[in-house]
Amino acid sequence: MLGGAATYISLSASFFTKTSLVGVVGDDFAQEDTDLLLRHGIDLEGLERVPGKTFFWAGKYSDDMNDRTTLQTDLNVFADFNPKLPASYKSASYLLLGNIQPALQAAVRNQMNGVRLAGGDTMNYWIADFRDELLATIRDWDFLLINDSEAKMLSGQSNLRKAAQTILDMGPHTLVIKRGEYGAMLFRRDSFFVVPGYLLEDVFDPTGAGDCFAGGFIGYLAEKGFDLEKDHISRGELSRAVIHGSVMGSFCCERFGVERFRTLTRAEIDARFEEFRRFTHF
Amino acid sequence: MLGGAATYISLSASFFTKTSLVGVVGDDFAQEDTDLLLRHGIDLEGLERVPGKTFFWAGKYSDDMNDRTTLQTDLNVFADFNPKLPASYKSASYLLLGNIQPALQAAVRNQMNGVRLAGGDTMNYWIADFRDELLATIRDWDFLLINDSEAKMLSGQSNLRKAAQTILDMGPHTLVIKRGEYGAMLFRRDSFFVVPGYLLEDVFDPTGAGDCFAGGFIGYLAEKGFDLEKDHISRGELSRAVIHGSVMGSFCCERFGVERFRTLTRAEIDARFEEFRRFTHF
Repeated sequence: MLGGAATYISLSASFFTKTSLVGVVGDDFAQEDTDLLLRHGIDLEGLERVPGKTFFWAGKYSDDMNDRTTLQTDLNVFADFNPKLPASYKSASYLLLGNIQPALQAAVRNQMNGVRLAGGDTMNYWIADFRDELLATIRDWDFLLINDSEAKMLSGQSNLRKAAQTILDMGPHTLVIKRGEYGAMLFRRDSFFVVPGYLLEDVFDPTGAGDCFAGGFIGYLAEKGFDLEKDHISRGELSRAVIHGSVMGSFCCERFGVERFRTLTRAEIDARFEEFRRFTHF
Repeated sequence: MLGGAATYISLSASFFTKTSLVGVVGDDFAQEDTDLLLRHGIDLEGLERVPGKTFFWAGKYSDDMNDRTTLQTDLNVFADFNPKLPASYKSASYLLLGNIQPALQAAVRNQMNGVRLAGGDTMNYWIADFRDELLATIRDWDFLLINDSEAKMLSGQSNLRKAAQTILDMGPHTLVIKRGEYGAMLFRRDSFFVVPGYLLEDVFDPTGAGDCFAGGFIGYLAEKGFDLEKDHISRGELSRAVIHGSVMGSFCCERFGVERFRTLTRAEIDARFEEFRRFTHF
């Protein structure tokens, strides 16, 4: 079925702002999947189509959904992907770099002119085996968005508060740590914010939840017109971006794959944001 | 060193209210430990002293402090403990029953007259092997305070929201689920509240943190004079009790055993409560 970081991030962000996608698919990519993205107003000029098969991943989750085992990864056309930005993308203000080889993330970042806010995701593989390349890449990011075990691995610290301080020394002024069902944390040099996870009654499929979090986070900031130069980056606005990320991640888990986004409305998103206020307020 | 549920619960509660302890120790119980409890104004009339050795437990924690292995448990004088309340205790308004055989918890509850709020803790052992006795015991409790794995075990539900509804059908109108470093949750029939854990820079020793949580929870409600008959039990006041529980649990972890309570002040407690507001507010 349809999946992948670019898909989840852009579908999620599209509920807040005009979104443009960069990625690569093979000639087997279904028209109905293209149509779904287009229906969400996503600009696909940056979606490269090349002969061959689309990237494929399959995995299996543990009973409590907290662990997963990869059953199959076929890079296919993704193996030779070298992202090129269409001219119309280069002046975009907000950039979210999905998990991919750090050098490619850097190459995309370098094609942009005048971006207001740039950041992205990474994973254990790049942290362990491409550490120098990764460190060079994130040095000029505004934010890094990773999960708790990645934060510990990247920093070499088992305590998250210490891990955060170490990572903030690597470049990004803002660090978001995702904790799956336990929620998320935002760290800045002088403050931090923690939100518990949304308590779903049924978790059908957590695949893509982290990417939907990222899409909600950047999408909300883009909608607000968040400008690092003009606005002082307040923890307040960033905290609300973390909540919007959490909201989008929670919706993602309610159905298989991207299914939930076929029917999701902005009113439902806003209602869940208010729900977060209610169950965390004291 | 000094330990045990009654010790942690009463030390923690003593920062909020006059506390009376029921328990048993052997003739090896140190005078300096008695003195520590007395310095906190804890009434020890209910502390039985019998010939023999005091209960002893030793354990070892995993590197991340999230798991522990019991190395030694010697029941000693605790094996024949049959708690008897001094006459002066029987009219107390607030009752916290530490983890012990459910029939003994019920026997203590039945010695009380006119208690306003009663509840307690339990553990996997009683849930698995004394289920009927436990269910009969908690039926008339106001609140049950357990951890997430115990909630799943007791309810037979792996989803915490469903687990909570099942447990609320067993009697208690309020359920508090502790999640260790991930915080705590409060469930009532019509609402719930979730708070993330406090981010300590150093966790020295989590032993007793759950009991300190319990002491802060009941201690705060007792200080407020919380009355189920008079006051509508608002989620608001109970949420603030959960925060006070979290605050006391976090202090407990900062030093070995009960050490932190030797110097802890009410001003530090209040400051940390405000810190919880700051890092969860959006």
